[in-house]
Amino acid sequence: MNFERNIQLIIEYDGSNYCGWQVQKNGVSIQEVLNKAIQKITKEDIYITGSGRTDAGVHALGQSAHFKTQTSIPINKIPFAINSQLPKDIRIQDAIERNIDFHSRYSAVGKIYEYKILNSEHGSALDNNRMYHIRERLDIDKMRQAAKYFLGTHDFTGFSSVHSSVINKVRTIDYSDFDIDGTHIIYTVRGNGFLYNMVRIIIGTLIQVGKGKIDHEDIPMIIGSKERAKAGPTAPAHGLYLQKVLY
Amino acid sequence: MNFERNIQLIIEYDGSNYCGWQVQKNGVSIQEVLNKAIQKITKEDIYITGSGRTDAGVHALGQSAHFKTQTSIPINKIPFAINSQLPKDIRIQDAIERNIDFHSRYSAVGKIYEYKILNSEHGSALDNNRMYHIRERLDIDKMRQAAKYFLGTHDFTGFSSVHSSVINKVRTIDYSDFDIDGTHIIYTVRGNGFLYNMVRIIIGTLIQVGKGKIDHEDIPMIIGSKERAKAGPTAPAHGLYLQKVLY
Repeated sequence: MNFERNIQLIIEYDGSNYCGWQVQKNGVSIQEVLNKAIQKITKEDIYITGSGRTDAGVHALGQSAHFKTQTSIPINKIPFAINSQLPKDIRIQDAIERNIDFHSRYSAVGKIYEYKILNSEHGSALDNNRMYHIRERLDIDKMRQAAKYFLGTHDFTGFSSVHSSVINKVRTIDYSDFDIDGTHIIYTVRGNGFLYNMVRIIIGTLIQVGKGKIDHEDIPMIIGSKERAKAGPTAPAHGLYLQKVLY
Repeated sequence: MNFERNIQLIIEYDGSNYCGWQVQKNGVSIQEVLNKAIQKITKEDIYITGSGRTDAGVHALGQSAHFKTQTSIPINKIPFAINSQLPKDIRIQDAIERNIDFHSRYSAVGKIYEYKILNSEHGSALDNNRMYHIRERLDIDKMRQAAKYFLGTHDFTGFSSVHSSVINKVRTIDYSDFDIDGTHIIYTVRGNGFLYNMVRIIIGTLIQVGKGKIDHEDIPMIIGSKERAKAGPTAPAHGLYLQKVLY
């Protein structure tokens, strides 16, 4: 019998055709597709654990996950082997041999997300499932100023889904800014953890600032209120990308 | 009865789910979807004419087409009206009122195409239908040098499909170069016209140069031979973008 190995995977996916990361009764999940592909190549009943869920439609450039196995497949062959069993909209980009205690979720010290907005008249055929199209001209300067108020350690109760069951809602954000490239507006946020829907509610609030519906100077008050109703709406899933999980 | 108008459309599309631009017996074409959408909003039996065909899987950022109509819809409302009847993977980006003699094909003086290559180990889930994935490391310097040989006026018989029925195969290319951004290799070519499959055979040949299978200094001889068999294979459709039609 071989030694048990703990293998971390870095995964890119187009979330458009999945019900999200996590196995669910209705719809095909990314986790389920990965489980089946890995079971096929290892011929073991493995189970993959992710760094966290992503919702239906959310994309990932660097989702992180791990699984325990006794397979003898060399580590550098693992991405090729798994990719050969995966649909084209899920790709393993890297496989890393970890010590047995590594856990893709509990060992993580932070995450980076991007949110992509297309601020143009008619939207894009090619980026249709890849960016959130907003016709109304956004005030980027005000959005930039508003984004800065999210930096630091805050209780993000008002920026999480009311369905969230987590008790400690204090999180620290150390990067929160926009990049502009013509009609493309890209928001990047890095933090030590994010509550359910937190990034989508933050960007939903920043979009309201860009539309002039929320004053950027009111952001500290909105955060402080801890009231979900004071923040903006949850922005659509298809603009969101899990960029990287930090360890 | 209203005056006859001649309206040019600038169209973006994701070619992945279509059998190409032109109406065909098997599969849904972009032209057919546009005809139906415009017929619906004008309530006329209009017929849209494109600047040229694109094959199944080929994308466009700026396909150009025109149609004659007596509709009274103001020109600035036309993109919104047509887009409201189109699937999300086809978008009208602009509508321009032209004089009655304008013809999207015969009035064109040139075209710009891009071809996108992803030169990475494992391919991309998100760019799966958007870039041609090549694993083998390409020699970009050699491809750049080879690309220059296509500049000028040449008989491109060897760089067109053997099924092409056009008699005059002389075309002039005035831009032919690569842009590199990490693992993304983008080829841009501008010319006064392109034969059937010509861009895909040119880039297919340049890829052979990048792989070391064709010497870049042999390109003038290959062009001069007018033999299809001497050029490289036809590169896949899904890396190709019709960028702009010039008038």
